[in-house]
Amino acid sequence: MNDDSTIRRFGTTTRWSDLVAHRGTAYFVEVPDDPSVGPREQFVQLLAQVDERLALVGSSRHRLLQVLIYLPDPNDLPVFNDVWDAWVPSGCAPVRACVRAELMDSAYRAELVVTAACD
Amino acid sequence: MNDDSTIRRFGTTTRWSDLVAHRGTAYFVEVPDDPSVGPREQFVQLLAQVDERLALVGSSRHRLLQVLIYLPDPNDLPVFNDVWDAWVPSGCAPVRACVRAELMDSAYRAELVVTAACD
Amino acid sequence: MNDDSTIRRFGTTTRWSDLVAHRGTAYFVEVPDDPSVGPREQFVQLLAQVDERLALVGSSRHRLLQVLIYLPDPNDLPVFNDVWDAWVPSGCAPVRACVRAELMDSAYRAELVVTAACD
Repeated sequence: MNDDSTIRRFGTTTRWSDLVAHRGTAYFVEVPDDPSVGPREQFVQLLAQVDERLALVGSSRHRLLQVLIYLPDPNDLPVFNDVWDAWVPSGCAPVRACVRAELMDSAYRAELVVTAACD
Repeated sequence: MNDDSTIRRFGTTTRWSDLVAHRGTAYFVEVPDDPSVGPREQFVQLLAQVDERLALVGSSRHRLLQVLIYLPDPNDLPVFNDVWDAWVPSGCAPVRACVRAELMDSAYRAELVVTAACD
Repeated sequence: MNDDSTIRRFGTTTRWSDLVAHRGTAYFVEVPDDPSVGPREQFVQLLAQVDERLALVGSSRHRLLQVLIYLPDPNDLPVFNDVWDAWVPSGCAPVRACVRAELMDSAYRAELVVTAACD
């Protein structure tokens, strides 16, 4: 039962949704779909996944509000920033936090918690 | 002084509130009320606490938006998921992030940061 | 390109913004501007930075919704709480989570992720 028509969910399983939108704000969490590749490839992949999620709700990387970045290995930060800086549109950078944290699959090189404006 | 009538607070102490609601969105953080019990019991307890908090603002587990899960021991994840999967209503799973982090009381087996839709 | 007039950004660089506001909610992240000082001085500094950020959008420490606190050293918690309790206005405490996490600069004694109501 869900009688709250202000909530839109995408990719909902028993455990989680891929994205939830509510009153013009979208929430989602990403880990790399394919963690078998190196850090740079994972980060490129992650941000491509973010683009796809945002498109689900008529949003885009121009409308990010906040991104929390969990990195298991702080040495990956320069590479992450490299990929990130090339991806974020000029003038549209969100608020960003970055802390070290072990992730639930040791192959993951980053987990992102994203908040964005949406339609 | 608080002249912002769009904010509702519950269980406010000097240090924190149990829940804050603003423009249809509720924010709250839970740690187990009784951390003397085992992981499974703590997780059952935690989710019961979440139900109670949500009821404060006319919300429910059907209207969760995002849950951030901090686990000090990643080995607890299967048990957490077990309790979680049984608790989340079908079709209503929120966005979910899960990372390892030590908590401020070493007896806590999880800390949850919850965002939900409310009235 | 940014055609979303519901978003206001402050201090935007290639990598991040100092604050992003959207539909009456402000998001920002703070680390100490000068991490060369001791923990207490860093925490006083951090909360002064929070005051400055909030003022950017007509908000104040009376209108905080949620604060996530990342502490690399849990032994700093009593000092953090001391500074925090003196700073939070009576009756206005936000929801608060606190977990241990290494930060991207080892000199930082705390990183704060803040959500607040704004005009």
